[in-house]
Amino acid sequence: MTASLYCFGESGNAYKAALTMTLSGYDWTPVFVDFFHGETRTPEFRAINPMGECPVFVENDVTLAQSGLIQLHIAGLTGQFQGDDAAEVLRWLFWDNHKGSSQFGALRFMKHFLPAEKRSDAVIGWLSGRVEAALATLEAHLASREWIVGATPSIADFACAGYLFYPETFGFDPVRFPATGRWLERIRALPNWAHPYDMMPGHPSERA
Amino acid sequence: MTASLYCFGESGNAYKAALTMTLSGYDWTPVFVDFFHGETRTPEFRAINPMGECPVFVENDVTLAQSGLIQLHIAGLTGQFQGDDAAEVLRWLFWDNHKGSSQFGALRFMKHFLPAEKRSDAVIGWLSGRVEAALATLEAHLASREWIVGATPSIADFACAGYLFYPETFGFDPVRFPATGRWLERIRALPNWAHPYDMMPGHPSERA
Repeated sequence: MTASLYCFGESGNAYKAALTMTLSGYDWTPVFVDFFHGETRTPEFRAINPMGECPVFVENDVTLAQSGLIQLHIAGLTGQFQGDDAAEVLRWLFWDNHKGSSQFGALRFMKHFLPAEKRSDAVIGWLSGRVEAALATLEAHLASREWIVGATPSIADFACAGYLFYPETFGFDPVRFPATGRWLERIRALPNWAHPYDMMPGHPSERA
Repeated sequence: MTASLYCFGESGNAYKAALTMTLSGYDWTPVFVDFFHGETRTPEFRAINPMGECPVFVENDVTLAQSGLIQLHIAGLTGQFQGDDAAEVLRWLFWDNHKGSSQFGALRFMKHFLPAEKRSDAVIGWLSGRVEAALATLEAHLASREWIVGATPSIADFACAGYLFYPETFGFDPVRFPATGRWLERIRALPNWAHPYDMMPGHPSERA
Protein backbone atom coordinates (compact mmCIF):
# COMPACT_ATOMS: atom_id res chain seq x y z
CA MET A 1 0.00 0.00 0.00
CA THR A 2 1.18 3.48 -0.87
CA ALA A 3 1.88 5.87 1.98
CA SER A 4 -0.69 8.62 2.49
CA LEU A 5 0.10 12.17 3.53
CA TYR A 6 -2.75 14.22 4.96
CA CYS A 7 -1.91 17.67 3.66
CA PHE A 8 -2.95 20.80 1.79
CA GLY A 9 -1.05 22.96 -0.65
CA GLU A 10 -0.69 26.00 1.57
CA SER A 11 0.99 24.07 4.39
CA GLY A 12 4.74 24.56 4.47
CA ASN A 13 4.93 21.97 7.21
CA ALA A 14 3.22 19.40 5.00
CA TYR A 15 5.51 20.40 2.15
CA LYS A 16 8.60 19.48 4.21
CA ALA A 17 7.32 15.89 4.45
CA ALA A 18 6.04 15.81 0.85
CA LEU A 19 9.32 17.17 -0.52
CA THR A 20 11.38 14.69 1.50
CA MET A 21 9.35 11.78 0.13
CA THR A 22 9.32 13.03 -3.46
CA LEU A 23 13.06 13.77 -3.62
CA SER A 24 13.75 10.36 -2.06
CA GLY A 25 11.56 8.57 -4.63
CA TYR A 26 9.28 7.35 -1.84
CA ASP A 27 5.86 6.35 -3.12
CA TRP A 28 3.13 8.50 -1.56
CA THR A 29 -0.33 9.88 -2.24
CA PRO A 30 -1.72 13.15 -0.90
CA VAL A 31 -4.99 13.12 1.04
CA PHE A 32 -6.48 16.60 0.91
CA VAL A 33 -7.37 18.16 4.26
CA ASP A 34 -9.74 21.11 3.99
CA PHE A 35 -7.94 23.17 6.61
CA PHE A 36 -9.55 26.44 5.55
CA HIS A 37 -13.01 25.02 6.24
CA GLY A 38 -11.99 23.73 9.65
CA GLU A 39 -11.34 20.07 8.87
CA THR A 40 -8.37 19.80 11.29
CA ARG A 41 -10.75 20.75 14.12
CA THR A 42 -13.29 17.97 13.35
CA PRO A 43 -13.59 14.86 15.53
CA GLU A 44 -12.86 12.74 12.45
CA PHE A 45 -9.51 14.45 11.85
CA ARG A 46 -8.66 14.55 15.56
CA ALA A 47 -9.10 10.77 15.57
CA ILE A 48 -6.23 10.62 13.07
CA ASN A 49 -4.13 13.31 14.76
CA PRO A 50 -5.26 14.56 18.19
CA MET A 51 -2.80 17.44 17.79
CA GLY A 52 -5.13 18.72 15.05
CA GLU A 53 -2.35 19.49 12.61
CA CYS A 54 -1.09 18.61 9.15
CA PRO A 55 0.91 16.77 7.95
CA VAL A 56 0.03 13.26 9.05
CA PHE A 57 1.80 10.30 7.45
CA VAL A 58 -0.03 6.97 7.33
CA GLU A 59 1.38 3.73 5.97
CA ASN A 60 0.09 0.33 7.05
CA ASP A 61 0.15 0.43 10.86
CA VAL A 62 2.41 3.49 11.09
CA THR A 63 0.78 6.88 11.76
CA LEU A 64 3.13 9.81 12.33
CA ALA A 65 2.47 13.47 12.99
CA GLN A 66 4.94 16.37 13.13
CA SER A 67 6.86 17.10 9.96
CA GLY A 68 10.29 16.65 11.57
CA LEU A 69 9.42 13.16 12.71
CA ILE A 70 8.05 12.21 9.28
CA GLN A 71 11.22 13.56 7.64
CA LEU A 72 13.42 11.52 10.00
CA HIS A 73 11.28 8.42 9.37
CA ILE A 74 11.60 8.69 5.58
CA ALA A 75 15.33 9.46 5.74
CA GLY A 76 15.81 6.43 7.97
CA LEU A 77 13.83 4.16 5.63
CA THR A 78 15.47 5.33 2.40
CA GLY A 79 18.95 6.16 3.70
CA GLN A 80 18.76 9.42 1.75
CA PHE A 81 19.10 13.04 2.85
CA GLN A 82 20.19 12.02 6.35
CA GLY A 83 23.08 14.50 6.32
CA ASP A 84 26.65 13.99 7.45
CA ASP A 85 25.96 14.68 11.12
CA ALA A 86 22.79 13.48 12.85
CA ALA A 87 23.10 15.95 15.72
CA GLU A 88 23.47 18.90 13.37
CA VAL A 89 20.42 17.78 11.40
CA LEU A 90 18.39 17.56 14.60
CA ARG A 91 19.68 20.94 15.77
CA TRP A 92 18.33 22.59 12.63
CA LEU A 93 15.08 20.65 12.65
CA PHE A 94 14.47 21.92 16.19
CA TRP A 95 15.56 25.44 15.30
CA ASP A 96 13.21 25.47 12.33
CA ASN A 97 10.30 24.22 14.40
CA HIS A 98 11.01 26.67 17.20
CA LYS A 99 12.27 29.84 15.55
CA GLY A 100 11.85 29.43 11.81
CA SER A 101 8.71 27.91 10.32
CA SER A 102 6.58 28.58 13.37
CA GLN A 103 7.01 32.32 12.76
CA PHE A 104 7.09 32.10 8.95
CA GLY A 105 3.83 30.17 8.85
CA ALA A 106 2.06 32.36 11.38
CA LEU A 107 3.02 35.62 9.66
CA ARG A 108 2.16 34.37 6.16
CA PHE A 109 -1.18 33.12 7.44
CA MET A 110 -2.03 36.41 9.07
CA LYS A 111 -0.94 38.53 6.11
CA HIS A 112 -2.51 36.45 3.34
CA PHE A 113 -5.06 33.95 4.57
CA LEU A 114 -6.81 35.52 7.54
CA PRO A 115 -9.87 37.65 6.69
CA ALA A 116 -8.86 41.32 6.58
CA GLU A 117 -11.02 42.22 9.58
CA LYS A 118 -9.12 39.73 11.74
CA ARG A 119 -5.66 40.98 10.81
CA SER A 120 -3.74 42.95 13.40
CA ASP A 121 -1.00 45.40 12.46
CA ALA A 122 0.49 44.98 15.92
CA VAL A 123 0.76 41.20 15.56
CA ILE A 124 2.10 41.52 12.02
CA GLY A 125 4.74 43.97 13.28
CA TRP A 126 5.74 41.76 16.17
CA LEU A 127 5.92 38.60 14.05
CA SER A 128 7.86 40.47 11.36
CA GLY A 129 10.62 41.20 13.86
CA ARG A 130 10.86 37.56 14.79
CA VAL A 131 10.82 36.46 11.14
CA GLU A 132 13.58 38.96 10.36
CA ALA A 133 15.75 37.56 13.16
CA ALA A 134 15.20 33.98 12.00
CA LEU A 135 16.00 34.86 8.38
CA ALA A 136 19.19 36.59 9.56
CA THR A 137 20.26 33.44 11.45
CA LEU A 138 19.65 31.33 8.34
CA GLU A 139 21.46 33.82 6.07
CA ALA A 140 24.51 33.94 8.37
CA HIS A 141 24.67 30.15 8.42
CA LEU A 142 24.36 29.83 4.64
CA ALA A 143 26.83 32.64 3.84
CA SER A 144 29.70 30.15 3.96
CA ARG A 145 27.88 26.92 3.16
CA GLU A 146 26.03 25.30 0.28
CA TRP A 147 23.78 23.20 2.51
CA ILE A 148 22.53 23.51 6.10
CA VAL A 149 24.50 20.47 7.29
CA GLY A 150 27.75 19.25 5.75
CA ALA A 151 28.37 18.99 2.02
CA THR A 152 25.10 17.48 0.83
CA PRO A 153 21.39 18.34 0.90
CA SER A 154 19.52 16.89 3.85
CA ILE A 155 16.13 16.96 5.52
CA ALA A 156 17.39 19.98 7.48
CA ASP A 157 17.40 21.94 4.21
CA PHE A 158 13.89 20.79 3.32
CA ALA A 159 12.65 21.79 6.79
CA CYS A 160 14.17 25.27 6.84
CA ALA A 161 13.07 25.93 3.24
CA GLY A 162 9.52 24.67 3.77
CA TYR A 163 7.87 28.09 3.71
CA LEU A 164 10.33 29.94 1.47
CA PHE A 165 9.13 28.78 -1.97
CA TYR A 166 5.63 30.19 -1.57
CA PRO A 167 4.56 33.27 -3.54
CA GLU A 168 2.79 34.84 -0.53
CA THR A 169 5.39 37.22 0.88
CA PHE A 170 6.15 37.49 4.59
CA GLY A 171 9.61 39.03 4.71
CA PHE A 172 11.93 36.80 2.74
CA ASP A 173 13.58 38.58 -0.17
CA PRO A 174 16.54 37.05 -2.06
CA VAL A 175 17.99 40.53 -2.60
CA ARG A 176 18.21 41.12 1.14
CA PHE A 177 19.12 37.49 1.93
CA PRO A 178 21.25 36.49 -1.07
CA ALA A 179 22.93 33.39 0.38
CA THR A 180 19.48 32.07 1.29
CA GLY A 181 18.28 32.85 -2.22
CA ARG A 182 21.14 30.90 -3.79
CA TRP A 183 20.51 27.98 -1.45
CA LEU A 184 16.83 27.88 -2.48
CA GLU A 185 17.95 27.72 -6.12
CA ARG A 186 20.18 24.75 -5.26
CA ILE A 187 17.20 22.97 -3.66
CA ARG A 188 15.01 23.87 -6.64
CA ALA A 189 17.60 22.25 -8.95
CA LEU A 190 17.47 18.87 -7.19
CA PRO A 191 16.03 16.07 -9.38
CA ASN A 192 12.24 15.78 -9.04
CA TRP A 193 11.87 19.01 -7.07
CA ALA A 194 8.39 20.46 -7.38
CA HIS A 195 6.65 23.52 -5.99
CA PRO A 196 4.32 22.95 -3.02
CA TYR A 197 1.28 24.02 -5.05
CA ASP A 198 2.20 21.45 -7.71
CA MET A 199 2.82 18.70 -5.19
CA MET A 200 -0.21 18.92 -2.91
CA PRO A 201 -3.90 19.64 -3.55
CA GLY A 202 -5.30 22.96 -2.36
CA HIS A 203 -4.47 26.45 -3.63
CA PRO A 204 -5.48 29.95 -2.50
CA SER A 205 -7.21 30.62 -5.86
CA GLU A 206 -9.79 27.95 -4.99
CA ARG A 207 -11.06 30.17 -2.17
CA ALA A 208 -11.07 33.42 -4.16
CA MET B 1 35.64 18.09 33.23
CA THR B 2 32.11 18.85 34.27
CA ALA B 3 29.62 19.74 31.56
CA SER B 4 28.66 23.41 31.35
CA LEU B 5 25.21 24.71 30.54
CA TYR B 6 24.95 28.30 29.36
CA CYS B 7 21.66 29.35 30.86
CA PHE B 8 19.64 31.77 32.99
CA GLY B 9 16.90 31.16 35.51
CA GLU B 10 14.07 32.65 33.49
CA SER B 11 14.69 30.41 30.48
CA GLY B 12 12.25 27.52 30.29
CA ASN B 13 14.20 26.15 27.36
CA ALA B 14 17.39 26.05 29.44
CA TYR B 15 15.41 24.47 32.26
CA LYS B 16 14.45 21.53 30.03
CA ALA B 17 18.15 20.69 29.60
CA ALA B 18 19.04 21.47 33.22
CA LEU B 19 16.19 19.33 34.57
CA THR B 20 17.08 16.43 32.29
CA MET B 21 20.68 16.48 33.54
CA THR B 22 19.77 16.92 37.19
CA LEU B 23 17.15 14.16 37.27
CA SER B 24 19.60 11.86 35.46
CA GLY B 25 22.38 12.56 37.98
CA TYR B 26 24.52 14.02 35.19
CA ASP B 27 27.27 16.29 36.53
CA TRP B 28 26.85 19.84 35.22
CA THR B 29 27.57 23.45 36.14
CA PRO B 30 25.54 26.47 35.09
CA VAL B 31 27.25 29.33 33.27
CA PHE B 32 25.13 32.44 33.71
CA VAL B 33 24.16 34.26 30.53
CA ASP B 34 22.95 37.82 31.09
CA PHE B 35 20.15 37.59 28.55
CA PHE B 36 18.30 40.62 29.90
CA HIS B 37 21.33 42.81 29.24
CA GLY B 38 21.74 41.52 25.72
CA GLU B 39 24.49 38.94 26.21
CA THR B 40 23.03 36.48 23.67
CA ARG B 41 23.40 39.17 21.00
CA THR B 42 27.13 39.77 21.66
CA PRO B 43 29.84 38.51 19.28
CA GLU B 44 31.35 36.56 22.19
CA PHE B 45 28.14 34.62 22.76
CA ARG B 46 27.45 34.21 19.04
CA ALA B 47 30.86 32.55 18.80
CA ILE B 48 29.55 29.88 21.16
CA ASN B 49 26.09 29.67 19.56
CA PRO B 50 25.51 31.53 16.28
CA MET B 51 21.77 30.97 16.79
CA GLY B 52 22.06 33.42 19.70
CA GLU B 53 20.00 31.33 22.09
CA CYS B 54 20.20 29.56 25.42
CA PRO B 55 20.72 26.81 26.41
CA VAL B 56 24.12 25.76 25.11
CA PHE B 57 25.71 22.56 26.41
CA VAL B 58 29.51 22.30 26.38
CA GLU B 59 31.53 19.28 27.46
CA ASN B 60 35.03 18.62 26.17
CA ASP B 61 34.78 18.90 22.38
CA VAL B 62 30.99 18.66 22.29
CA THR B 63 28.98 21.88 21.92
CA LEU B 64 25.23 21.52 21.46
CA ALA B 65 22.48 24.08 21.09
CA GLN B 66 18.70 23.56 21.06
CA SER B 67 17.19 22.12 24.21
CA GLY B 68 15.64 19.12 22.43
CA LEU B 69 19.01 18.05 21.08
CA ILE B 70 20.67 18.44 24.49
CA GLN B 71 17.90 16.40 26.09
CA LEU B 72 18.33 13.61 23.52
CA HIS B 73 22.11 13.71 24.02
CA ILE B 74 21.87 13.31 27.80
CA ALA B 75 19.20 10.60 27.55
CA GLY B 76 21.41 8.74 25.09
CA LEU B 77 24.48 9.01 27.36
CA THR B 78 22.73 8.05 30.58
CA GLY B 79 20.12 5.64 29.21
CA GLN B 80 17.56 7.42 31.38
CA PHE B 81 14.26 9.13 30.51
CA GLN B 82 14.41 7.91 26.91
CA GLY B 83 10.78 6.82 27.00
CA ASP B 84 9.23 3.61 25.71
CA ASP B 85 8.89 4.81 22.14
CA ALA B 86 11.54 6.96 20.46
CA ALA B 87 9.18 8.23 17.74
CA GLU B 88 6.58 9.31 20.29
CA VAL B 89 9.25 11.16 22.29
CA LEU B 90 10.39 12.98 19.15
CA ARG B 91 6.81 13.78 18.18
CA TRP B 92 6.26 15.56 21.48
CA LEU B 93 9.65 17.29 21.44
CA PHE B 94 8.77 18.72 18.02
CA TRP B 95 5.26 19.62 19.12
CA ASP B 96 6.62 21.40 22.18
CA ASN B 97 9.15 23.34 20.14
CA HIS B 98 6.61 24.24 17.50
CA LYS B 99 3.32 24.76 19.31
CA GLY B 100 4.04 24.63 23.03
CA SER B 101 7.06 26.36 24.52
CA SER B 102 7.52 28.73 21.61
CA GLN B 103 4.16 30.32 22.47
CA PHE B 104 4.44 29.86 26.24
CA GLY B 105 7.84 31.57 26.35
CA ALA B 106 6.85 34.41 24.04
CA LEU B 107 3.65 35.22 25.94
CA ARG B 108 5.31 35.03 29.37
CA PHE B 109 8.11 37.28 28.14
CA MET B 110 5.73 39.87 26.78
CA LYS B 111 3.47 39.87 29.84
CA HIS B 112 6.16 39.89 32.52
CA PHE B 113 9.61 40.79 31.22
CA LEU B 114 9.11 43.31 28.43
CA PRO B 115 8.99 46.96 29.54
CA ALA B 116 5.35 48.07 29.87
CA GLU B 117 5.65 50.58 27.04
CA LYS B 118 6.63 47.81 24.63
CA ARG B 119 3.77 45.48 25.49
CA SER B 120 0.97 45.09 22.98
CA ASP B 121 -2.52 44.03 23.99
CA ALA B 122 -3.11 42.81 20.44
CA VAL B 123 -0.05 40.54 20.53
CA ILE B 124 -0.92 39.33 24.03
CA GLY B 125 -4.43 38.51 22.85
CA TRP B 126 -3.23 36.70 19.76
CA LEU B 127 -0.58 34.69 21.65
CA SER B 128 -3.11 33.87 24.39
CA GLY B 129 -5.30 32.13 21.84
CA ARG B 130 -2.39 30.02 20.65
CA VAL B 131 -1.31 29.21 24.21
CA GLU B 132 -4.87 28.16 25.06
CA ALA B 133 -4.97 25.80 22.07
CA ALA B 134 -1.61 24.27 23.02
CA LEU B 135 -2.64 23.80 26.65
CA ALA B 136 -5.86 22.13 25.46
CA THR B 137 -3.85 19.67 23.33
CA LEU B 138 -1.64 18.84 26.31
CA GLU B 139 -4.62 18.48 28.66
CA ALA B 140 -6.45 16.15 26.27
CA HIS B 141 -3.35 13.99 25.96
CA LEU B 142 -2.78 13.82 29.71
CA ALA B 143 -6.43 13.19 30.60
CA SER B 144 -5.90 9.44 30.19
CA ARG B 145 -2.15 9.20 30.86
CA GLU B 146 0.30 9.67 33.67
CA TRP B 147 3.20 10.61 31.39
CA ILE B 148 3.49 12.07 27.90
CA VAL B 149 4.94 8.86 26.41
CA GLY B 150 4.28 5.38 27.73
CA ALA B 151 4.31 4.44 31.40
CA THR B 152 7.39 6.32 32.61
CA PRO B 153 8.66 9.90 32.76
CA SER B 154 10.77 10.92 29.78
CA ILE B 155 12.47 13.92 28.25
CA ALA B 156 9.16 14.61 26.46
CA ASP B 157 7.64 15.42 29.86
CA PHE B 158 10.53 17.69 30.80
CA ALA B 159 10.22 19.53 27.47
CA CYS B 160 6.47 20.10 27.59
CA ALA B 161 6.64 21.14 31.27
CA GLY B 162 9.60 23.49 30.81
CA TYR B 163 7.60 26.71 31.16
CA LEU B 164 4.81 25.45 33.42
CA PHE B 165 6.54 25.61 36.82
CA TYR B 166 7.24 29.34 36.66
CA PRO B 167 5.30 31.76 38.85
CA GLU B 168 4.82 34.30 36.05
CA THR B 169 1.37 33.47 34.69
CA PHE B 170 0.58 33.25 30.99
CA GLY B 171 -2.58 31.16 30.84
CA PHE B 172 -1.89 27.86 32.56
CA ASP B 173 -4.16 27.23 35.51
CA PRO B 174 -4.39 23.80 37.18
CA VAL B 175 -8.08 24.40 37.91
CA ARG B 176 -8.85 24.78 34.21
CA PHE B 177 -6.31 22.13 33.14
CA PRO B 178 -6.50 19.59 35.97
CA ALA B 179 -4.83 16.63 34.26
CA THR B 180 -1.90 18.88 33.38
CA GLY B 181 -1.77 20.08 36.99
CA ARG B 182 -1.63 16.52 38.32
CA TRP B 183 1.09 15.63 35.79
CA LEU B 184 3.19 18.61 36.96
CA GLU B 185 2.85 17.33 40.52
CA ARG B 186 4.13 13.92 39.38
CA ILE B 187 7.16 15.58 37.79
CA ARG B 188 7.70 17.70 40.89
CA ALA B 189 7.77 14.49 42.98
CA LEU B 190 10.62 12.91 41.00
CA PRO B 191 13.84 12.48 43.05
CA ASN B 192 16.10 15.56 42.84
CA TRP B 193 13.49 17.73 41.09
CA ALA B 194 14.17 21.41 41.66
CA HIS B 195 12.48 24.60 40.56
CA PRO B 196 14.11 26.48 37.65
CA TYR B 197 14.91 29.46 39.86
CA ASP B 198 16.68 27.13 42.30
CA MET B 199 18.59 25.31 39.57
CA MET B 200 19.95 28.14 37.43
CA PRO B 201 21.33 31.58 38.26
CA GLY B 202 19.24 34.63 37.37
CA HIS B 203 15.90 35.71 38.85
CA PRO B 204 13.45 38.51 38.01
CA SER B 205 13.96 40.08 41.45
CA GLU B 206 17.55 40.89 40.51
CA ARG B 207 16.25 43.33 37.90
CA ALA B 208 13.61 44.95 40.09
